[in-house]
Amino acid sequence: MSYFTEANSTATVNGRIGPDTDARLAEVMASLTRHLHDFVKDVALTPAEWDYAVGFLTRTGQICSGERQEFILLSDVLGVSMLVDAISNRRPEGATENTVFGPFHVEGAPIRAMGDNISLDGKGESCLFEGRVLDLEGNPIEGVTVDVWSDNADGYYDVQQPGIQPKWNNRGRFITGPDGRYAFRGIKPVSYPIPDDGPVGQMLAQLGRHPYRPAHMHYLITKPGWQKLVTHTFVGGDEYLTSDAVFGVKDSLVAPYERLEGADTLWRSPFDFILVPA
Amino acid sequence: MSYFTEANSTATVNGRIGPDTDARLAEVMASLTRHLHDFVKDVALTPAEWDYAVGFLTRTGQICSGERQEFILLSDVLGVSMLVDAISNRRPEGATENTVFGPFHVEGAPIRAMGDNISLDGKGESCLFEGRVLDLEGNPIEGVTVDVWSDNADGYYDVQQPGIQPKWNNRGRFITGPDGRYAFRGIKPVSYPIPDDGPVGQMLAQLGRHPYRPAHMHYLITKPGWQKLVTHTFVGGDEYLTSDAVFGVKDSLVAPYERLEGADTLWRSPFDFILVPA
Ligand SMILES: [Fe+2]
Ligand SMILES: [Fe+2]
Repeated sequence: MSYFTEANSTATVNGRIGPDTDARLAEVMASLTRHLHDFVKDVALTPAEWDYAVGFLTRTGQICSGERQEFILLSDVLGVSMLVDAISNRRPEGATENTVFGPFHVEGAPIRAMGDNISLDGKGESCLFEGRVLDLEGNPIEGVTVDVWSDNADGYYDVQQPGIQPKWNNRGRFITGPDGRYAFRGIKPVSYPIPDDGPVGQMLAQLGRHPYRPAHMHYLITKPGWQKLVTHTFVGGDEYLTSDAVFGVKDSLVAPYERLEGADTLWRSPFDFILVPA
Repeated sequence: MSYFTEANSTATVNGRIGPDTDARLAEVMASLTRHLHDFVKDVALTPAEWDYAVGFLTRTGQICSGERQEFILLSDVLGVSMLVDAISNRRPEGATENTVFGPFHVEGAPIRAMGDNISLDGKGESCLFEGRVLDLEGNPIEGVTVDVWSDNADGYYDVQQPGIQPKWNNRGRFITGPDGRYAFRGIKPVSYPIPDDGPVGQMLAQLGRHPYRPAHMHYLITKPGWQKLVTHTFVGGDEYLTSDAVFGVKDSLVAPYERLEGADTLWRSPFDFILVPA
């Protein structure tokens, strides 16, 4: 037995983990302690910096509420959310890639008929979203729930503006038929900032980073027997595509937006989703 | 430019740090991101575990108040506080070592005469603490402020029991004379648990760890021109010496406690403090 020193710090702390500890918890905590100590040693973290970090984490926790999750934001802007998502959703070549779920999904959106319009506030540039849900061999999948949501033309989700936006504005669920097709009208989404009036926003500012996400349509695509697909399609050409504040963009998820001339609907964004068996 | 992937995650996130960012902030954040991503990758952190971590950090932040700092506790039990302290207080051989400050110091304790009794509640086993404050060559240092504090016989600091313990119970400041000597009477301190009714206590329980600190007397020893010494002396033989919940024990800080026969004062704990020029 030896007392804690700079040199033995990780082994000493991890040596305290009791023999009856859940094996996975022990593995995770031992790795966390090791990396945390390595970080402190690598930068020779000063007491003043440590004190700032304690204050930062405390403010991050204290701003959390039913409507605000600042630790998720922190995880997002440090790329941790996307990393966890990537590790748990490694898929075969050709399958549609996952991206972050985000905080704005709402369970139980109305089930709508194919082609219906989900934009209820009359704002924004109308856009037809359509394509097919396929398996890896290109066969259509019937009975898939395609749950979609986006911000409105002002950059806000309906749940961020209760009483201002109509309920279920820019949300809906669509069920594929035998041809695997989905189609709905919405608006061409717009880029928006993540909440930046808290500690995470201050951190972004100190790092010279903006808080914007490139415009995207959210998809939650599910059918029993198939891997759940949580993804977005991004608006090609968006100015924030290469600097998404939460690192959600993947090359394969950037969708075309074709201008439709002489039609009520201004844009058409075609995209096929390829699912993997569970 | 490439989008975020599992493989390039750290470089992608750190590549966003702006050119005008404070150099030290950029260094610390880049290292933090790298170690955080390495941790997530090493254990292949699952979305459910990530979700638990977000909840844990949120609860840790939300239990903080003017009287409670759960993030400091978290840092303490993970050995981070001691590590930061060790890195910032590397001293030459022979100098008294630092240890954690702890949350119970109070500024402005009464300045008392040498030999005075700081135990005001009449509880506990009386103990004479005495010794000298010396430089590295063994010369006494005059005019040093020796600020001391301990728990009472029930294991609580006075500030944890306002209205129960007398104000300034087991606290005092003593100024050395030309001989460098200090002496005061207090009680033989007792071991006590850190607050364990919050998230950190739950974590300790899940890891099979107890929340106790071995009995100790706190010292803050200062004189302009000399490095500030923040330390404890530990009660030799304490059952928690080798399992201090916050890893504060160092071999050189374990003090003798000699039983005095036939005296009012039951114990004597001699200890010399060796300061380093600033
Ligand atoms: Fe979004
Ligand atoms: Fe203490």
